[in-house]
Amino acid sequence: MIIVMEKTSDCATLETYLTEKGYEVHSLEGGDEILLHLIGDTTALEIQSLSSYEGVRKIVRTKAPYRYVNKPRTSGPFLIGERRLDDMLPLYIAGPCSVESKEQILHIAEKVKEAGAHALRGGAFKPRSSPHSFQGLHKEGLQHLKSAAKAHGLLSISEIVDKEDLPLFEDTVDIIQIGARNMQNFSLLKALGKSSKPVLLKRGFANTVEEWLLSAEYLMMHGNDKIILCERGIRTFEPSSRHTLDLGGMLAAKQTTHLPVIVDPSHAAGDYRLVEGLSKASIAAGADGLMIEVHDKPFQALSDGAQSLKPKRFAKLIRSLKAFEEHN
Amino acid sequence: MIIVMEKTSDCATLETYLTEKGYEVHSLEGGDEILLHLIGDTTALEIQSLSSYEGVRKIVRTKAPYRYVNKPRTSGPFLIGERRLDDMLPLYIAGPCSVESKEQILHIAEKVKEAGAHALRGGAFKPRSSPHSFQGLHKEGLQHLKSAAKAHGLLSISEIVDKEDLPLFEDTVDIIQIGARNMQNFSLLKALGKSSKPVLLKRGFANTVEEWLLSAEYLMMHGNDKIILCERGIRTFEPSSRHTLDLGGMLAAKQTTHLPVIVDPSHAAGDYRLVEGLSKASIAAGADGLMIEVHDKPFQALSDGAQSLKPKRFAKLIRSLKAFEEHN
Amino acid sequence: MIIVMEKTSDCATLETYLTEKGYEVHSLEGGDEILLHLIGDTTALEIQSLSSYEGVRKIVRTKAPYRYVNKPRTSGPFLIGERRLDDMLPLYIAGPCSVESKEQILHIAEKVKEAGAHALRGGAFKPRSSPHSFQGLHKEGLQHLKSAAKAHGLLSISEIVDKEDLPLFEDTVDIIQIGARNMQNFSLLKALGKSSKPVLLKRGFANTVEEWLLSAEYLMMHGNDKIILCERGIRTFEPSSRHTLDLGGMLAAKQTTHLPVIVDPSHAAGDYRLVEGLSKASIAAGADGLMIEVHDKPFQALSDGAQSLKPKRFAKLIRSLKAFEEHN
Amino acid sequence: MIIVMEKTSDCATLETYLTEKGYEVHSLEGGDEILLHLIGDTTALEIQSLSSYEGVRKIVRTKAPYRYVNKPRTSGPFLIGERRLDDMLPLYIAGPCSVESKEQILHIAEKVKEAGAHALRGGAFKPRSSPHSFQGLHKEGLQHLKSAAKAHGLLSISEIVDKEDLPLFEDTVDIIQIGARNMQNFSLLKALGKSSKPVLLKRGFANTVEEWLLSAEYLMMHGNDKIILCERGIRTFEPSSRHTLDLGGMLAAKQTTHLPVIVDPSHAAGDYRLVEGLSKASIAAGADGLMIEVHDKPFQALSDGAQSLKPKRFAKLIRSLKAFEEHN
Repeated sequence: MIIVMEKTSDCATLETYLTEKGYEVHSLEGGDEILLHLIGDTTALEIQSLSSYEGVRKIVRTKAPYRYVNKPRTSGPFLIGERRLDDMLPLYIAGPCSVESKEQILHIAEKVKEAGAHALRGGAFKPRSSPHSFQGLHKEGLQHLKSAAKAHGLLSISEIVDKEDLPLFEDTVDIIQIGARNMQNFSLLKALGKSSKPVLLKRGFANTVEEWLLSAEYLMMHGNDKIILCERGIRTFEPSSRHTLDLGGMLAAKQTTHLPVIVDPSHAAGDYRLVEGLSKASIAAGADGLMIEVHDKPFQALSDGAQSLKPKRFAKLIRSLKAFEEHN
Repeated sequence: MIIVMEKTSDCATLETYLTEKGYEVHSLEGGDEILLHLIGDTTALEIQSLSSYEGVRKIVRTKAPYRYVNKPRTSGPFLIGERRLDDMLPLYIAGPCSVESKEQILHIAEKVKEAGAHALRGGAFKPRSSPHSFQGLHKEGLQHLKSAAKAHGLLSISEIVDKEDLPLFEDTVDIIQIGARNMQNFSLLKALGKSSKPVLLKRGFANTVEEWLLSAEYLMMHGNDKIILCERGIRTFEPSSRHTLDLGGMLAAKQTTHLPVIVDPSHAAGDYRLVEGLSKASIAAGADGLMIEVHDKPFQALSDGAQSLKPKRFAKLIRSLKAFEEHN
Repeated sequence: MIIVMEKTSDCATLETYLTEKGYEVHSLEGGDEILLHLIGDTTALEIQSLSSYEGVRKIVRTKAPYRYVNKPRTSGPFLIGERRLDDMLPLYIAGPCSVESKEQILHIAEKVKEAGAHALRGGAFKPRSSPHSFQGLHKEGLQHLKSAAKAHGLLSISEIVDKEDLPLFEDTVDIIQIGARNMQNFSLLKALGKSSKPVLLKRGFANTVEEWLLSAEYLMMHGNDKIILCERGIRTFEPSSRHTLDLGGMLAAKQTTHLPVIVDPSHAAGDYRLVEGLSKASIAAGADGLMIEVHDKPFQALSDGAQSLKPKRFAKLIRSLKAFEEHN
Repeated sequence: MIIVMEKTSDCATLETYLTEKGYEVHSLEGGDEILLHLIGDTTALEIQSLSSYEGVRKIVRTKAPYRYVNKPRTSGPFLIGERRLDDMLPLYIAGPCSVESKEQILHIAEKVKEAGAHALRGGAFKPRSSPHSFQGLHKEGLQHLKSAAKAHGLLSISEIVDKEDLPLFEDTVDIIQIGARNMQNFSLLKALGKSSKPVLLKRGFANTVEEWLLSAEYLMMHGNDKIILCERGIRTFEPSSRHTLDLGGMLAAKQTTHLPVIVDPSHAAGDYRLVEGLSKASIAAGADGLMIEVHDKPFQALSDGAQSLKPKRFAKLIRSLKAFEEHN
């Protein structure tokens, strides 16, 4: 880390303060400024506070703020249920936004399995902007999901919104999803960090890649390294899609961490007509998988119908992705 | 609500579907399109799903999506502790980002009281982007805050991040804060909706005013109408401040709801040199109060030092605000 | 277009006003509101002004605001120089950000030709944020570009920033580029609209897809329909790339217009390590081509070196794109 | 400037390269990295290109990128027409978005003069997103503006969009405006830099404060230091106002430069109901003036009616601002 100071400022006091905190401090004077070069682990240093020390012009991190996510994986193979993640890449997760009934999820499970999906998604505890919107079938929804996945040999995944539901999720799904709105729900992250279940961590729609990786860092620091990152679009001024898919961010994440990074083109698009193009783009760019919403009667869907593909269209998409898988 | 359809599409089926859902549907044909005008409460209708019905060009809400926040207040006076909010407007809340020790919070409490603040802030459960950053003193911090507030006749406020801590908060503070990162933590909103304590609801840094009011709607629907909204800056491309204070959003909120709306210029600015200007702007524009970070040794602060005013500067600011209070 | 009005407002006066402007106005009353449905070409109507008429709740366009860009192409084949654009798709444009010397552009021309590019880019009039940055070789740069392109059988393209240079550009390049910062320089658009040269119209980094297409509309209305649209990233809060590539916007543009849409991954990324992934993504998603910066000594480049590929890496990328071209 | 390099990289070659460019280079080794500290004027150095040198971890500017805008003013008093700017602060500019007719502008001029405005605005060359929108009365409009301003003892201001119109503007208006869309039209900036007329430079809606000041730097470098900066809102995800007024950016600009900074709340708001609050906020925060749209028949305005105040409401606003002027 570098602290750039005005030559006339009281560097000595600051150096003493930092030395007492355990850092080795080198200094270099030049022109009208002095550089303090800190050697040591600065991940816990309150840079923003330090920057208010009189005479500080700028403070710059020269190292990544992580201790875990940017290190090579050391534990054994990444297992989901009894399957190795490596054998499934690119990982295809599909299903309805919400579990709406036993029949609905069973029917869609059959269709996405036929099309080649590895895992079945279906929300049971829905984080909805309005309290007047459908909130999910809760425990019953998770049980329908579990049955449908089992019936068709699919892994299952659903979003958790409250840590008190963790035992229920551990009992019913293979992957627990942390949604975009909870990416910085640190209580939830700490709880999931203690679980042995794989976690799919969505990027918040207004969070930087660095913040996203720091949320993964919470999970790893508390003991869980079975993390799948999922880019799902960020909020921008452009209205032609619901969010703006950030494939540059997906690539930047992959260059920083060993963790797998998949893409959810459905939430990024908000419109089924953009989903195929964005899916192809993601796989071609090197994403480790996709999470796609599939619904058989989109206009009657209790949530997010407009961004759902019908089963036939989904099957066709999966076939067309094969060409890109081989060359990404 | 209006559904704009292509003339050639199957309107009849959609009309039947909507009529069965209880809406009165009027239609108007003109040019190559047909308008379906829905009469009835559409706050629970899944517009996004409907928009995927074949032939739909556009769906437009003509009414606000709220049932509560846009209605006049009907319960009695808004009390915080035993004081009427109306008697304190504009409400000044001040204190350190984090409670760091018993002495620190007691000292700052004295200073902000002298300056004219009504309430003492101090975080005990800190939502930090990095797990390596200071996470707060937890229960002990809340007790220090309570003592310091009591010693100086101040109301107290602190941020909750986990609903399991609700009894502790109800016991120690006068106002419970929901932070920006938890504005759409709907489990927490539902839990706080059942509390009798006033809630300060910060706007998420990537949330629209409408989403912010819908989060207040969650609180009200579950029974709590003692809500103070707090604008604290949104995330944009501009790096000269940490966030961009959205006073237009504050004004838009005030034009929609009877709920009081205050401003946190400290988090918006991220730099103490911008805090005074933004504070004056907020009060002049008509904000119902301010929440300002105050610290006596900013560069050593365990969080957010750079945006904290020293006590003297805070006192001077409060004096200078008097001129604006009278004319806003 | 629909005007939603409060039932109690003076609709009659507004209806008369609109009828006199030549619109057919139908009205429909329901609940506490009245809908006015305007039939006719509303592309020139000042909606924003109308919305301030007393009692107007909302005004909604139901038709696209275009007269030209959303219609099928009627003139003959799209020629660039003497070559048909259709025969070159996907179109690969490559070269340095700036023409720096005769030797530099000649050398890079040779390399990008070998790699399979169709056209050579090179800026001669550079729009730079700072007046202290390199501003380009101007006329001399264009002549070097022309010679280098001719020597290697490449088409040429360069950015114009001042309409007074139009004769010079018409004399030296095959495609005239309008850069992101000039996408809404309407004087320049009108001038280029009268040229017979193909125009590459970059999307402004803060412009919506609709505004981008309206800028193309300026060109077409003034007579030039040889337009290539180019998505190059939008400005967002994310710092890991210089801009955020908006492939959803690229797809939305292609669903609206017959005009070809290519992608510039270099300016979006700002970092050569992201360029390959974003290039593959773009072609897989269905982009009509790419514009990529190539430089043989990036760190000494007079502009934008960090986002430039070295010639070998570019050649490898073009080869790897073949697999995606066939399946997009 | 600091270049942070990996210890194992070839620093010597880079040092030689930089020394030959005239910089004094000091180096400091520590941990696994080496800092190169450059002493000298780096405003013209291509940092982005340099960052691609192998082994560079980061490059950080430690000085502002300006040579002019951050220095104290040295030429004489800032005159507009024959009046000193200092005598008019805060400067109030008002009038319609567009000059629509001789009568219209004359009538509004009378009203804004009565209310206390110093200058009359009125667009004659309108930059409109759509070519189908009203484009302005051009030369005739400027002459109406000139007559109306003269008739009521007001200064006049209008927006230029093409440098070929500069003689016409110099002949008709007292202040020449560069609009948001042309903030980075560097040809126009260079031309205006050579004019002796004061320039009002609006911030682009997607430009940083630094880019805005660099555009002022273009004007100053070419000889014109009579610049009024104008903040008018930036583009964000929030739809409740047309743009988001960035008062933090206004304050940051004022802390960097001696140039006066005013605010245009009308374009920021896009809605007349937000204009008063944002005007008060701006003056209270310390803005040097306001530019406000005023129209007597907003709903019939040929542009931007919804954000225009009626004359009475404008007069009332100006009166209410007096209280804030004294205390900002």
